[in-house]
Amino acid sequence: MNAVEQSLTKGPERPPEGVVATSAASLVQQPAPAFGEGKRADRWLLSRMLASLGSPPLELAIRNGARVGVGTPVARVTFDSRATMLWVLADVPLRFGDAYSDGTVKVEGDLVSLLETVYRAGRRDGGERDPLAQRVSRVLYRPHLNTLTGSRDNIHHHYDIGNEFYELWLGSSMAYTCAYYPTPAATLDEAQVAKMDHVCRKLRLKPGESVVEAGCGWGMLAMHMARRYGVRVRAFNISHEQIAWARQRAGVKNYTMLGGVVQRCLGGRGRGFIHSIGRNRPAPLQPWIEKRIFPGGYPPALSEMARIFEPWDLSILDVENLRLHYAQTLRHWLALFEGANERVRSMFDEKFVRMWRLYLAGSVAAFATGSLQLFQVLFAPGESNDVPWTRAHLYER
Amino acid sequence: MNAVEQSLTKGPERPPEGVVATSAASLVQQPAPAFGEGKRADRWLLSRMLASLGSPPLELAIRNGARVGVGTPVARVTFDSRATMLWVLADVPLRFGDAYSDGTVKVEGDLVSLLETVYRAGRRDGGERDPLAQRVSRVLYRPHLNTLTGSRDNIHHHYDIGNEFYELWLGSSMAYTCAYYPTPAATLDEAQVAKMDHVCRKLRLKPGESVVEAGCGWGMLAMHMARRYGVRVRAFNISHEQIAWARQRAGVKNYTMLGGVVQRCLGGRGRGFIHSIGRNRPAPLQPWIEKRIFPGGYPPALSEMARIFEPWDLSILDVENLRLHYAQTLRHWLALFEGANERVRSMFDEKFVRMWRLYLAGSVAAFATGSLQLFQVLFAPGESNDVPWTRAHLYER
Repeated sequence: MNAVEQSLTKGPERPPEGVVATSAASLVQQPAPAFGEGKRADRWLLSRMLASLGSPPLELAIRNGARVGVGTPVARVTFDSRATMLWVLADVPLRFGDAYSDGTVKVEGDLVSLLETVYRAGRRDGGERDPLAQRVSRVLYRPHLNTLTGSRDNIHHHYDIGNEFYELWLGSSMAYTCAYYPTPAATLDEAQVAKMDHVCRKLRLKPGESVVEAGCGWGMLAMHMARRYGVRVRAFNISHEQIAWARQRAGVKNYTMLGGVVQRCLGGRGRGFIHSIGRNRPAPLQPWIEKRIFPGGYPPALSEMARIFEPWDLSILDVENLRLHYAQTLRHWLALFEGANERVRSMFDEKFVRMWRLYLAGSVAAFATGSLQLFQVLFAPGESNDVPWTRAHLYER
Repeated sequence: MNAVEQSLTKGPERPPEGVVATSAASLVQQPAPAFGEGKRADRWLLSRMLASLGSPPLELAIRNGARVGVGTPVARVTFDSRATMLWVLADVPLRFGDAYSDGTVKVEGDLVSLLETVYRAGRRDGGERDPLAQRVSRVLYRPHLNTLTGSRDNIHHHYDIGNEFYELWLGSSMAYTCAYYPTPAATLDEAQVAKMDHVCRKLRLKPGESVVEAGCGWGMLAMHMARRYGVRVRAFNISHEQIAWARQRAGVKNYTMLGGVVQRCLGGRGRGFIHSIGRNRPAPLQPWIEKRIFPGGYPPALSEMARIFEPWDLSILDVENLRLHYAQTLRHWLALFEGANERVRSMFDEKFVRMWRLYLAGSVAAFATGSLQLFQVLFAPGESNDVPWTRAHLYER
């Protein structure tokens, strides 16, 4: 990683030097500049790429070649060759990530700001895209089917890397989930403990009660519940082989079956809780993330999560959207990750570092711009009146 | 109204005298008793009616005739004649209410307990109903289409009765919506003021802001917002002619249009709030309530309410289910209503008193047993980061 690259996530707010602010539209319309035909074509293609992204304030460039910019660019993206640019252009949502990971695309400026800018522009842009952009958009929303082998490979990259890697950047609480910051100034570890207490308070755990936890990670919440709240916890996790199997079959169509299992666990009087990444409306995961990071992953809209509850008359008591807390959690993870760069590179390789940086930075951007949500949903059997009278107990000191 | 009827809503918890505890099933199976064929047939039909309701612990009787009971009955229902019993049997969900209103069905014991028992039994009963019960169930869930004239007539009964009537039982806060009880011991008026503050805190109103209120009732919330929070409120309500028109066209299929109007009101940074009766899963309103009390009314499931939010990328921030608070509000309304019985009868007639008693008691039962929910939903445009960091501010003194 060179010096320019090191400035990625802590880079300056000001635009990189030498960028001329203009608009993609004016670039497309302006007369041919006084240099070679190839460079002119490159500028036109870069402009189209910018327009297809909703004209975010960025500079796009080919190394030692054409460059275009919109507004006051927050970052510069440089393709190492025309070939790379053309390869990415054919499938920006998937191939930008791959080219970034390979190092054939470099970013100057703050990577998180760059990605936030792209998310925001995509939302603003809405229905007024040109035909090329529409094609890109169709690619963006193409459902991605995993083979069993492919899933195993991808999952190996994400979950089967060893605890030592996760210890480098998850903090001492070792929780790979959204934390809860009582104030934005709380530390990561404080916020992870606060999250566990927030969940336990929502569930109103009482000593001697039984808890079933499905998907327990490193078991930190289970231990917290048992030690601090005196409950008996049965916590479940599945091996990576099982994950590969389940991921392929998991999805919204199985939510009704999931709800049936939950209902049987709760009996007539239990309390249930889901902590899940979600969306404001049904849409697939970003294609590069889905292919390289979370194969088969799908963040549901609340209307889709309803398939867990409705067939079983489970009653939704409380929904809290904590997306800004997940953005903050991810900022802390990313900072720890960047601090452990050398160590990660020695454990894996440069491509791995770039891939995980892009994943973490992209996740900050997605939660910060409202492209992803974090829903905490408290629920109970429809006939149960063992439900909290108010939520004031969550906020008592 | 006779002495027995007066005990309706404050009646004894113990079962009425002279009731023999048995089960509907054993009644159906036992050998013919030693009295006339007609009475034996009546007992069989009453047993079927009880079974069709899920065998709740009730006694059903025909005046001076047959009677059957299940378990330890919480109340006795007496039909004034075999003809009334047969007429009700053909469509229990709709005609029980009509016969009760006419006084051809009387109830001894607590009406709310009776109705809670029926709601609970219906839920327990689930999918194991006999063919007669299935027929009753189909009737229960038959969608009810209103004619324009019919809607006008029904709405006249509900909304066009004059403020003097509502002043008798809504309390000084004059709010015909679910209150919020900081503790169960709060008075109705305290809880209505607390509700208004709870809503204003959720919206984090700041002086000088603009509020649009759609459906403002008597304008108490609008005035509270303006006086206590220094905001400018534009509050809308529609005449009963418009209600008749709108009700006919209103419904889940127009939620997307509603969401579009809301989104335009909010711009990119506003906050939105919905306070609505709802359900755990899609189902029509109870047929008698829908026909006699709220023509065209439909309490949506959250998955249906999603049609307001999803097409416009509105982000759900907070959902609170206050159904137990609505049960409590309705208990307070019912007690005030019973205290004003004589006054209401002199303004209208005995049938009106019985109809409104059944409506209020049935609503207590529906919210207390979880057949109806009260959802408060806070939302914002998906791109807005002007969202609360936590909900702690709702519970500060």
